[in-house]
Amino acid sequence: MENFTYFNPTRIEFGAGKEQHIGEILAEHGVNKVLLCYGSERIKREGLFDTVSRLLADRGIAWVELGGIVSNPVISKVREGIATARENGVDAILAVGGGSVLDSAKAIAAGVPHEGDVWDLFVGKAGIETALPLFSILTLAATGSEMNPSAVVTNEDTREKFFIGAAALYPRVSIVNPELMRGVSRDYLVYSASDVIAHLIEAYFTASVHPKLQSRLVESLILTVIETTEALLADPADDDARAQFAWAATLALNGLTYSGAAGFSYPNHAIEHALSALFNVPHGAGLSVVVPAWMKWYHGRNPAQFERFARQVFNVDTVAQGIAALEAWFDKIGTPTRLGQLGIQEADLPAAVDNVQRNMRLFGIADTYSPDAVTAIFRNAL
Amino acid sequence: MENFTYFNPTRIEFGAGKEQHIGEILAEHGVNKVLLCYGSERIKREGLFDTVSRLLADRGIAWVELGGIVSNPVISKVREGIATARENGVDAILAVGGGSVLDSAKAIAAGVPHEGDVWDLFVGKAGIETALPLFSILTLAATGSEMNPSAVVTNEDTREKFFIGAAALYPRVSIVNPELMRGVSRDYLVYSASDVIAHLIEAYFTASVHPKLQSRLVESLILTVIETTEALLADPADDDARAQFAWAATLALNGLTYSGAAGFSYPNHAIEHALSALFNVPHGAGLSVVVPAWMKWYHGRNPAQFERFARQVFNVDTVAQGIAALEAWFDKIGTPTRLGQLGIQEADLPAAVDNVQRNMRLFGIADTYSPDAVTAIFRNAL
Repeated sequence: MENFTYFNPTRIEFGAGKEQHIGEILAEHGVNKVLLCYGSERIKREGLFDTVSRLLADRGIAWVELGGIVSNPVISKVREGIATARENGVDAILAVGGGSVLDSAKAIAAGVPHEGDVWDLFVGKAGIETALPLFSILTLAATGSEMNPSAVVTNEDTREKFFIGAAALYPRVSIVNPELMRGVSRDYLVYSASDVIAHLIEAYFTASVHPKLQSRLVESLILTVIETTEALLADPADDDARAQFAWAATLALNGLTYSGAAGFSYPNHAIEHALSALFNVPHGAGLSVVVPAWMKWYHGRNPAQFERFARQVFNVDTVAQGIAALEAWFDKIGTPTRLGQLGIQEADLPAAVDNVQRNMRLFGIADTYSPDAVTAIFRNAL
Repeated sequence: MENFTYFNPTRIEFGAGKEQHIGEILAEHGVNKVLLCYGSERIKREGLFDTVSRLLADRGIAWVELGGIVSNPVISKVREGIATARENGVDAILAVGGGSVLDSAKAIAAGVPHEGDVWDLFVGKAGIETALPLFSILTLAATGSEMNPSAVVTNEDTREKFFIGAAALYPRVSIVNPELMRGVSRDYLVYSASDVIAHLIEAYFTASVHPKLQSRLVESLILTVIETTEALLADPADDDARAQFAWAATLALNGLTYSGAAGFSYPNHAIEHALSALFNVPHGAGLSVVVPAWMKWYHGRNPAQFERFARQVFNVDTVAQGIAALEAWFDKIGTPTRLGQLGIQEADLPAAVDNVQRNMRLFGIADTYSPDAVTAIFRNAL
């Protein structure tokens, strides 16, 4: 085990009906006016928007609206949110949506008190010492953003998908009601499964120090994701499966599984972010293509852990069988495993490899992931 | 899954040398004067006391001392600590020790601002709304008290071992350095293993709702405790095993494994607390006697979960084999499994059963655990 600090101050309110408490939660935190961030029209269609605005009104909390946040959220929208927040003097951000809305809300929360352009924070030109307090109501479980201090946003001018992370960005309270996720499409359910598994395997496979305790926790969460995804595909009304899926997604990226691990990196995310930035593919769809391709390229560097994965997750004997089993499972649930399924052709690879390099430098792993190496990984997914 | 709130604001500083930061941590929290609570002379002999007092002095933090806190800590010592804290106007409590020191420190932290006698808080005569801020340096991993808001103390006049719990009692920061646990005796290591396993199985077996995700997390932690205890018995210098043991002990009772579970109770603790209160047996030693005896009595109420336990933890097929395997493991590591090993005879049972009843009423499970039922459980351990 490596030394670590574990500190996660986000309060999670989990379960049916918890969104009914949003007014009192904001009032309890002394909030007077929020920027209400959301994405799709689903929250209006399903009545959640009306519920939330009524609950705010009941407590005398004013709100201004920032709708239309898209998947692979963009920095121009974040800038719009910062301007709206400043003009209206909001004292908190309320995100109602999935990871894209949460991440945009975090960037806005950090951007409001920052004097320069918000992209400075993504490229390391400035640090994040303070942010507006952030609250969330989650409507899609995947990214874990509801209980972590990180956010990923795309700069559509530079075609860069970069991240920020700072203690000030932990949501104060996140409401996770699995019933609010009933409207998630089949596609986004399976992309979410792929995203959660990708979060879990990055440190699991790449860490130079990864205690068996943490490996067991990771495997417990992967097995839960596999089982509950299958249950939900078979029966979308299985709210208990949806609840376990959602809590597994939160635990997958809230610091728990990383505590005591060291020397790990996020190569699959670094590669996928390039696909999202260039071709606007859904993050989870990109990851289910990248992960098996990367595993085929990487496994020789950590054979014992790949054997463990094969045995513990898929009950098969060899590294190759374990990788094949994960790829077959992605195929089975219907998330892509080939670049062609994302509309990406061989001719697109040089641009993708170039974009990946920028991410690898940002993640500090450009030496391992040379252009040749990344090309080889992509070729595994042709 | 049941609805739940997950909120654990304790910051854990885990790993070698972390106690060197205690001065800056207290200063960062604006602390000027602490009540320094400890138990055995081990922390003086091993130099930790000198280290801590030097680090406090370096930051200009004053301290008054409360030493001599014993295992199965007693309310008279807590009262002494409250008086000392008040007389000296301390603004925080610093616990240096194991669960008994932590629990005493929590009771003192709650007792200082309480106007009446501190035992009022244990018997429900008054609630705990506020407490002095609490910090800890852990020297024995077992109770999880370093990352939870509960404490158990014995009233030596009434022979009651009761508990308190309140959000104000979460330690602000707990330092967990496994190297500070090298001096733990072989006996206390195996008692600790039994204590952690007991924490993990209470909800696992008794909950009316216990999602598979949480069962997997519990099994991951039990397997880690079994493996690392054996590693430490074979080689007390195995610091990595000690670290995984310590982190498993913290995670076993920090709320993680209970999130989403419902309708559970703590019968093994309710029974053991009577043994500690009456016969002053070490808590973990009492638990390794009670747990197998209770399992033999209880398993028919939740056969599926007992089968799961047998398969997942011990890789055996039947409920009876699973219970026998745990009992055999306790025997193997050298923690007691029979009342006689604790010096408790058949003639002592009526008094024990009577004491258990008070705990069962406090835990709200007196209907299930009638005197006859508790007698039957004890008889399984004769």
